[in-house]
Order: sequence, then structure tokens, then C-alpha cells
Amino acid sequence: MLPDSDYKKLTAPESIALVGVTSRTGRGSNSPLEVLIKRGYQGRIYPVNPKGGEILGHRVYPSLSDVPEVPDLAVICAPRDAVVELFGQCADKGVKIVIITAQGFFDGDEEGILMQQELLNLAAKNSIRILGPNTLGIVNNYYNFCTSFIDYINPIKPIGITCQTGTFYVGASQLCTGTGILVDSGNTTDISVSDVIGHLARDPRLKVIDIHLESLHDGIKFMEAAKDAVPLKPVIIYKTGSSPAGSLAASSHTGSLSGDDRVFAAAFQQCGLLRVADIEEMADLNKAFCTFSGIRGNRIGIISISGGAGVMAVDACVRFGLEIADPTRATLEQLSPLFPKWAHCDNPMDIWPVAIFHGYQNCLRRFLEAYLQDPQIDAVICMTGSFLTTDEDFLDVTDLIREIAGKYPDKPVVVSSCGNNYPYYEEELEKDNTVVYYFSLERAARALAALYKYHHLIKNKKDWSAALSLHPGQREAAVRLLAGKTGNLSQADALTLLKAYGIPVARWGRAKNIDEAAALAAGIGYPVTMKILSPDIIHKTDVGGVRLNIENTRQLEKAFAAMHTEIEHKQPGARLDGVIIQEYLPEGIELLLGCKRDPAFGPVLVFGAGGVFTEILNDVSLRIPPLSREEIKAMIEETRVSKILAGARGTKAVDMELLINCLVNLSELMLANPAITEMDLNPLIANRDRVAALDARVILG
Amino acid sequence: MLPDSDYKKLTAPESIALVGVTSRTGRGSNSPLEVLIKRGYQGRIYPVNPKGGEILGHRVYPSLSDVPEVPDLAVICAPRDAVVELFGQCADKGVKIVIITAQGFFDGDEEGILMQQELLNLAAKNSIRILGPNTLGIVNNYYNFCTSFIDYINPIKPIGITCQTGTFYVGASQLCTGTGILVDSGNTTDISVSDVIGHLARDPRLKVIDIHLESLHDGIKFMEAAKDAVPLKPVIIYKTGSSPAGSLAASSHTGSLSGDDRVFAAAFQQCGLLRVADIEEMADLNKAFCTFSGIRGNRIGIISISGGAGVMAVDACVRFGLEIADPTRATLEQLSPLFPKWAHCDNPMDIWPVAIFHGYQNCLRRFLEAYLQDPQIDAVICMTGSFLTTDEDFLDVTDLIREIAGKYPDKPVVVSSCGNNYPYYEEELEKDNTVVYYFSLERAARALAALYKYHHLIKNKKDWSAALSLHPGQREAAVRLLAGKTGNLSQADALTLLKAYGIPVARWGRAKNIDEAAALAAGIGYPVTMKILSPDIIHKTDVGGVRLNIENTRQLEKAFAAMHTEIEHKQPGARLDGVIIQEYLPEGIELLLGCKRDPAFGPVLVFGAGGVFTEILNDVSLRIPPLSREEIKAMIEETRVSKILAGARGTKAVDMELLINCLVNLSELMLANPAITEMDLNPLIANRDRVAALDARVILG
Repeated sequence: MLPDSDYKKLTAPESIALVGVTSRTGRGSNSPLEVLIKRGYQGRIYPVNPKGGEILGHRVYPSLSDVPEVPDLAVICAPRDAVVELFGQCADKGVKIVIITAQGFFDGDEEGILMQQELLNLAAKNSIRILGPNTLGIVNNYYNFCTSFIDYINPIKPIGITCQTGTFYVGASQLCTGTGILVDSGNTTDISVSDVIGHLARDPRLKVIDIHLESLHDGIKFMEAAKDAVPLKPVIIYKTGSSPAGSLAASSHTGSLSGDDRVFAAAFQQCGLLRVADIEEMADLNKAFCTFSGIRGNRIGIISISGGAGVMAVDACVRFGLEIADPTRATLEQLSPLFPKWAHCDNPMDIWPVAIFHGYQNCLRRFLEAYLQDPQIDAVICMTGSFLTTDEDFLDVTDLIREIAGKYPDKPVVVSSCGNNYPYYEEELEKDNTVVYYFSLERAARALAALYKYHHLIKNKKDWSAALSLHPGQREAAVRLLAGKTGNLSQADALTLLKAYGIPVARWGRAKNIDEAAALAAGIGYPVTMKILSPDIIHKTDVGGVRLNIENTRQLEKAFAAMHTEIEHKQPGARLDGVIIQEYLPEGIELLLGCKRDPAFGPVLVFGAGGVFTEILNDVSLRIPPLSREEIKAMIEETRVSKILAGARGTKAVDMELLINCLVNLSELMLANPAITEMDLNPLIANRDRVAALDARVILG
Repeated sequence: MLPDSDYKKLTAPESIALVGVTSRTGRGSNSPLEVLIKRGYQGRIYPVNPKGGEILGHRVYPSLSDVPEVPDLAVICAPRDAVVELFGQCADKGVKIVIITAQGFFDGDEEGILMQQELLNLAAKNSIRILGPNTLGIVNNYYNFCTSFIDYINPIKPIGITCQTGTFYVGASQLCTGTGILVDSGNTTDISVSDVIGHLARDPRLKVIDIHLESLHDGIKFMEAAKDAVPLKPVIIYKTGSSPAGSLAASSHTGSLSGDDRVFAAAFQQCGLLRVADIEEMADLNKAFCTFSGIRGNRIGIISISGGAGVMAVDACVRFGLEIADPTRATLEQLSPLFPKWAHCDNPMDIWPVAIFHGYQNCLRRFLEAYLQDPQIDAVICMTGSFLTTDEDFLDVTDLIREIAGKYPDKPVVVSSCGNNYPYYEEELEKDNTVVYYFSLERAARALAALYKYHHLIKNKKDWSAALSLHPGQREAAVRLLAGKTGNLSQADALTLLKAYGIPVARWGRAKNIDEAAALAAGIGYPVTMKILSPDIIHKTDVGGVRLNIENTRQLEKAFAAMHTEIEHKQPGARLDGVIIQEYLPEGIELLLGCKRDPAFGPVLVFGAGGVFTEILNDVSLRIPPLSREEIKAMIEETRVSKILAGARGTKAVDMELLINCLVNLSELMLANPAITEMDLNPLIANRDRVAALDARVILG
């Protein structure tokens, strides 16, 4: 997080230098000076341009050195080829916060990358913090402050935005008709979302934070910042570049690494971020969080102008995990006399049979009031009819909905409508911030689900991480084993390493020839499994290098011979180092436990269904360690295979504590040994009494 | 499908009787007569009301018998208690098409259900076709015709709509600012979507058909009607009541059966319907199909005002299965000199570095034209900037986009924008029907994907069904086996039945005691499997009633004893009829083949991953037979397990023809034997040479 004073200098400076500002003004001039003046910025402005003179009544300084004070903030507005020199002026002047607007650095060519590196070196030497390059900078609507060179309409709304593209500045009004404070970090060379969201979360004027993220350098720093912000305020995140093709476009755009989307998904979930799929969902959630300060539960009352639309509303609620409320008997007894005798009085409430006799407005008033008073209803979705007909404007219910909803501020009322009311309805309903309108019932339900998720599942979530707790000897064992090695660790070393870290391994041993193998098998006890040992063979099963369920010495001898013949045939010339003999564990569930090192987040733990069909089942969950045991349990329960672990038809429940131990130990192994870039245990066999890895792959960087 | 003359009487009658019409007029009167007059209907109108007199200049007839001709269509506008009597008047008069508006029939109470049944009996006796009850009836904007009692604004648009709720009449303007012809079938007692869509598909004025469906009585009739319509016109379907809770609401609403959503999904897919998740998606697709007559392929060119938005557009395209176009070398050579030297010239095209120097309008014109001329680009997504700023209105590009897009009518151009241009942008861009605007890039990509899907994957799809081809003897074998039986068929009968229908079964036999079992096993050949035979034990595995891989007589004897002890312990008192001895097939993939009889669609074929974890893997695909071999192949390929069948790591590819044969035969077994309500083969073992069912459950109704 930026120090308070730096954040203030960045977003609400008392003085600003516009270094390299254009001397043009007016239509199409792209002058940030003009924008600042129009916005009514009250701080001191110092335009800097070698030509000197005056622009719009402001004296222009030929060089930053001529400026009579050290400004809080400098914005370098020149094209990229002038940037390094102007940045040098900033350093000489002693400016500590610099925004760089120009494109063409990490987002550009080889030369741009070198220039950005030069800026970073200069910044480090002079303790300067950089926002950008390739950014429109800051909007602070509470301070009449904006560093952009185009002046978009952007009214005050209690939304804090951090983004990596100017699109969000330009589009802020679309995200919820405005913003409070916006920080565009562009290429994110230095100042990033992680430096800023803590401040946004503590700004009492803001109700919600939006993050747009293309890429991350430091995932752990990001997660810490997010975990700090989420209990204070809902944080919505729109991650782009999430498709393989999009991520390619992202890496050429911002010049930094884009990671595997699944890792991001795990990180966002662990931090309690509300991830959205597109800009429209972001705008929808913004509206809900700006309007409603909470929601008591997820039991939804539905009041509909039509039975058919009531069915749609139920579908939408179920789709987003909301419950269809059961109104109290008192509510139903109060309302049912209004209906004709043949009609159903229940939630979802189709009020048309009442409205046609008692008038739509009267009827909606009674039902809405009754629903909002009902202790078994937490929020209301109201599906209204169209009223913009040729003469049926008496159907307009916008005023009455606002009036009634305003009396029950702790119960969200969201409205959707069928008919040509849009956008009139939206504007009318939302004008005093008591009610929210959505074009479709699905969007209405999605927004309520996000409110519920934030206030009940995320906001007060206990910390999910746990401290590292290495046992004595573990670190030494690893150091000894890994010393000087690279690439694939041998099977034997891998199993030894696991054991040192307390991860159970099926009994095993190495044998150079059939005699050693027979002795070993006798010691371990039949049945056994035999696997070929070879630095050249990666997928042993594919070449016949694995023999299961060997029951006695005779079978062992036959299998040994057959295996060698098959490998000779399928991979001639492979170097063979003997075999591994391992106890055969016929009963149990095959699992995959793994870990990979992500460039942004470090170790990422993977759990899921194992065995030869791992890729096809694609049944895994991810987390970023260290993790609490509760979080590991949640991780396991996300997978389909967890239902089998709990004891599905004919199988016995697996000892969950043993399994959690394995994942804890695996995390610690990865965290304590940076040399390991990737490892997986596949399969790890789990049954009622026991958990044991049969095979392990450990890759060193 | 309705006969032409009936369809004409329903949607474009030359004369209409409004039976039981209100004598009130004006604000809130709910008079369909007033609506008809306002719409400018040119046919002959006969108001019928016992009070007689005159309404709005029209003579009122005290009874339908007083009307001077047999009207093409009668609309019964009275409340439900008067309906049966007035329907009798229609029958006496000889009216053949009747619309019933009132609610409270199948959608109401017991009395309502009886009344609806009475109407159906009367209709059958007098050859009358009914639309409704519980319907607003018909809108035919090409004929100034509307039977609703409220006059909503509903401009002419080339969209045909059939629905089961008045919501779509009220909301038609929301679905794409209007409609051409709309048929609301309400409770759908008689005339249904299946009677109507063939006519809509053949109406040259309509470009797209929308179906809203809550429930279906005759799934096969529906599928035939849909398969007839789809090659003529895109058909969009919004199925509501798809959640279990929603389906409950649906069945109380329309008083008819709502089926399993997966069956509907299979049926829609087989017919080539474009299923949407909500009303907004329906509106989005309507716009695309009303504007674009086709699309050449799915290679998308992206022109964006910002790099960040370009990344979002790529994500959106990938999410909906579109390809990111590779522009030709000529296109790139033409455009790249416009960029500063550091910038990338490639698709997605971030034109900001060009626009800032050459002007946004100039630049967009050149890029859009170049993209639309490029033979490697099939459609363009254009992400524009906001222009509604304080003084930057020169950024408005709506005219130029329409102008250029208009020159290339075979290449869809869809626009999204960031900034506060909405809804101005939408209206401006769409006003001459050359371009479509969407609020988000995801919606833009989704619409293009639907265009591609319809024109390339659906429209010309060959028929997916196949004729039944029973072999001699099959029917007799089944009749013999099933005669007089109900409930669960015995395991032995089930396997015999399968064999009669050409579905391979692992060699097996019944044994009453251990001596018979041993003799049988010797005949079949070890290894064998032994399973308990008992009418009381459903899940044999759960009580230890299945023993696999028995290798010799000694093991058989031990297993026989152990099995009986375990069953005695776990299910004491279960009746035991001996055991089944079956050849043990250790190698191969466990599959599930099944069939269930759906109330609307009849037999539904199920294929997927089998074994004890079937439910957990939840890896199945469904189809409605009879099916062509191609369709069965597609069905298999939808599952994850199909990747294993094709030969994943260490396994051999399964003989697909043998598997397809099984599914063909299973379909025929179900189609030819209506007594079977449900059956499954689980597991069916498939390997390279062989397919064989090990276990079968057959349930008779």
C-alpha cells in the first residue's frame, strides 16, 4: 500500500506540474491543462514547455527547474521519446510522484522496453513512484481533479476504480453513471492496484471498489491488499485476458506476464473478490452495492404482473443460488382474500388476477408492503408491466415502488419490467437511490446473489491462511536431496522427499535385477506393483513399464521378463536402471495432489481426481498456500471426487484428516523449497484407514 | 400444423365476434373492441353482449345467434364462469376457431379443470379449435389485428412470436422493439406452438421466430414442427420453468406437465433450435437475425479504440467459440505504415496510437474499410470510444460506421462502446438496419456466434433420425418375456431381453447353489464374476452381493460363502434365488447406456460414463430416438468419457461401430415396447474388440 502521503500526492495533490504539456487548446487539442481548469481544480498548476509563454492564463515554465516549488505530482504528457529526459528533470527537481501518459514502452517495441527499464532505474535511485506509462492517470471527483487529456463526462458516484486501461476512465459513466476516484495504472511499472485499494477501501465516501486487471507481477502482494480491503468494502473484479488468445493480446498490450486463468480464479476466491464476466455485470453489481447497504438473507419474494414472468423469476433465482421465500401465514392470510377463488396465492405472487379487479397500483402497493413487512422475506424482485401504451399510463408504478421501498431500507427491492419502459423506468426508479432496475430478471437475481454473497459469505470470512510449520529435519532432508540437481527428480528421490515431509508413500524399494526384486517383494509382502526405473521414460504406462497386482514370485518373474521385452520393443535404447517394487493397494480412491509455481502467485496447490484419466475428468480445485485446514477442506469439497471420498455407493469414507495433512505438508514442501517448480502425486490412494502416494513427479527449475 | 384456412381465420380473420365484450370504453376499460378499432382492423366486427345497444358506433348483438354471418373467429372475453355457456353459443353458430381469454381453468382450481375439460369435449364434438384459455390471443401487425384487451405499443418488426404467457405480448417491444405476428397460446389446451411455427416459418415477411415455452404435451409433434421450421428460418427458444422450483411454478401456472430440463435441452439441440437463457439474449439475437442475412464464417476482426478493450473483445470471442481472424498480409501492409514505429499492427487492432495522430474518424474509416474488404475476415466487432464529452462530439462515428457497413451487407458489423453513449448510440447506429449495437462485447460476440451457428451448423443439418428396423423375432421375444410382468424385471430376464435385441451381454448363467455355480464357471471359463440373485436387493454392491475376478474353484467356494454371510448380516431376511455367474471382463471402459420414457417426448436415450461413480461423474448425453448413426456418434462425442473411448493414455480405442449398434438396438427396444418405462445397462464394458453389458435394470410400467 502506498504511504498515506504518497496516495494523497497522487490523487489529491496540492500542486501539479504538467511536464511537456501541449500549447494547443480547444477542440481536439488533448490538453490536460484545459481539462484541469474545466474541472475546477483548486491546486497550483505548473505547465512546463520549452516554448514558455502562457496557456489559458497560466504562465508556462520552460523547464521544471524553473518552477518555484517542488510540486506534489508531475504528469509527463510528452510522447515517449521525450519521456526519459523529462523524467530526469523530475528527479533533479525532487518530485516524488510521477505519472507518465505516453504509450510505447513495455507495451511497445524493444526500444520502449529499454526506456521503461531506464525509467525504473532512475526512479529507484531517486525514490520516485511512477504511475504508468500508458495511462490516463487519476480522476478524483471529490477534488475536481483529473489528469486525463480528454474531459469525459464523469459524475460523482461512490465507486472507486483501479484499472489497467484508459477504457475504464472513458467508460466510467457506463459502469454506474460515474465514479468517485479512479486510478489507471496503465502498464503498471510501479504503482499498482495493490498500492491503492487499501486507500479506496478506507475512503468513507466510496461504497464499492472496481478492479480491472489484465496482469499481475506480484500475486501475493495483490492478495494481501485484497484481503485487507474486502472486509471493509465489496470489491468487484473484472479480469481480462482470461482466454488463451486474450492472454496473448494482454501480454503484448501491457508488456507483463498473464497467468493461467484458473490460478487467478483461485486467488480471487480466496480473497473474497466478486469476479464478474463482463462490463455489464460490473455495472449491475455497482448499482446494487451503491443502493443497498446490506441484505438479511437470500429468501426472495417475487411479485409479478404475470404468472409466466413469475416462472422466469423463479428460474433466475434458482440459477443464482437464491431461495424462493415462504411467506408467513399472516402474509398469505392477508393477501389471499383479494384473489378470485380459483387463483393461487403464494410466492411467486402473480398479482394480475387481483390487479384486473382492484387496479394495478392499489394492488402492487398492498402486495409490496406486505412482502417487505414479512420476516421470512429478505428481498423482493418485482416484475412490473409496461405502461407506456397508448392510454394506459395509469399503470405507471415507479413512484409508488420508490415510496414503499424507501420505508424498508434494509430490504432490497429490485425491479424488472416487460414492455417498452426502458430507459424511462430505469431513470425514474433509480433517481433517489432506493430501488434498482434491471433489464432482465436474470440480471436482477444475479445482483441480489452478489449482495448476499458479499454480506453473508465473504465479508466476515475468517482468514484462510495458516503459518508455515516445518518439522525439524525437513528442510535439511530437502536441501540434501535437491542439492545440485535440475530437471526431473528420480522416482526414488521424489518418494524420499515426500516421506521427509510427512507425506505417506506406499512401501517400496529399488531393485537392480530380478533377484533383488524378488527379495524386496518378499519383504514388502505380496501383492506388489513393479515399475521400470529409467531417466528416459516419462509415461511408464504407455510403454508397459508398470505391472500391477503381482501375487507371487512366479508372477513377478514372468512380469519382469515381459516388461523388459515390451519396453525394448516400444522404446528401444531407453536407459534402464532396474525397477521399483511397491506394495499394491487395490482398494481406495485415486487422487491427484500437485503443486505448480506460478510466476505471479508462487506455489499453487492442486487437488482432484487422479489416475490415468486425470486430464479427461478435469476435476480439480486450486488454492494458493499457506492454507488453513478449513480452507483445505473447502478446497477438497469443491471437486466431484470429494463425494466419493465421503463414502459413495459401496465405498467407505476416507479419513479426511489424513488427506488434509498431505496437502498441508505438500504446501510446506513447495513453500520451503523454491527450487521445485512443479510436482505431482498421481495417484495418491486414499481409503478409510490410509493415504499413500504411489507415484510422484518432482521437477526442479 | 394448423390447416392454412384455420391459420388464416386465427391470425387474419375477415370477421370476428367479440363474445361477452364489455360495454365500458376508455381509460382502464379493458375493451378488446376499442383496441381493434384503434389498430384500424378492416374486417367485420360483431360485439356480442346481452345488453345489446351500441359501443363506439358498432351495433351490439344480444347473442351470437343474432350475428348475420358465421364469423371466422370468435373471442370469448367474459370471465370464466360465463365461458362454457358462451362457447356453446359458438358451437351452435358453427364458429370453428375460438379464443378464450379468461383465467382460472387448468391454471386455477378443481372447478376450472373440469370446465376446461368440458370445453375440450364440446370442441371435439363440434370440430372447434381453441386458442387458450388464459391468453391475450393474437397480434398480426401486417393486418392491423390484435385481440388483446390492452393496446400496447407494438411496432411492426419481422419477428414471429409464439408464447405461453401474455408477458410476451406486453413485452414484445422489448424483444426487438416490435413484432410481426404473435400467437399467445396461454394454457395451450389445443392450438400450440407446433400448430403455428410452420406458418410463421413460411411467412416471407418474417426473418426470425421466437418461441417461449413453459410446458409441452406432445414433444414429438413439437420436434417435427421445429425440424420443419428451422431450415427455413432461425428459431430462438426461451424455455422457462427449467429449474426444479421454476418447473413447479410452471405446472401450477399452466396446468400441464413440465419435464426434465435435460430432455428439453436434448430435444432443442436435435431440432436445431437456438436456446437462450433469458429475455435479453432473445432480444440480442433477434436484432442480429433481423439485421444480418448471413455470415460467411466465424473469423472475427476486432477494431478497438483501446488495447485494453481489444483484450476484452478477444476474451468474448473465445468464450463464444469464435475465431480471432488473421488479416491478410495485404491488409496489414496497408495499415501498418499508419502506426508509430513502436506499435503493433495486428488483430485485435488497437487504433488509438493511429487515431491520436490522424483523427479518430479518419482512422476508423480506413481500418473498417480494410477489414471489410479482407477475405480472411467474416465479421467485425468494433469497440468505439465515448464521444458525449463536453466538447469532443467530433468523435461521433455512428454515421461513418453505418455508411461503410452498408457497403458490405454480407459481413456483419457489430458495435459496442465504452462511455456514456447509450442509448443514443444504439438508436443512431441501428436506424437503417445495417449495424447492430450491444452494450457489452460479450453480448456482441454471443450474437455473432448465434449467427454462425445457425447459418453453418444448423440450417442445413441433415435429418438426425432413422427409421426403426426391428429384426424378425425381436418383437416376439420381448412380448414373451414381458407378458404379464410389472415392476423390476429380473436380472436374468433383463439380460435375455437385451440379447434378443442384439445387445451383447457377457456370458452368464444362473446357479442355485455352489455346485451349480462351479459347473457354470468351468463352462464359461475363469476368471468369473459372481452376483447374488434376489428380488429384494436393488444395489447389490452395497451389501457385498458382487464378487469380481474369481480365478478358480477354490476362490469361488470361498467367495460364495463370504457373500452369503455378508448379505445375511447386511440385509437379513432378503429372499435369495441363487447367484449369477458371469465371465469377468477386466479390460475396458465402463459405460452407462440407458433409456427413460419422458411424458412429453417418449423414450429418451442416455449415454455416458458408467460404473459405481456414474452419478458423481454426471457425464451423460441425451437424445430422443430414433436416431441416425451419425447422430448417435455425435451423442457419444459429447461426453468426456468419449475421449477415453478414442484411446487415451495407455488404453486402446474402442470399436465405435459396436457401441453405436448397441445404442441403435436399445432405442428400438424402447420404441417397440411401450411397457418398459426405464432401463439401464450399467456397466457396459467396451474395449477394442468387444462391447458387453454386465448388468441391466429394466423397469416395467
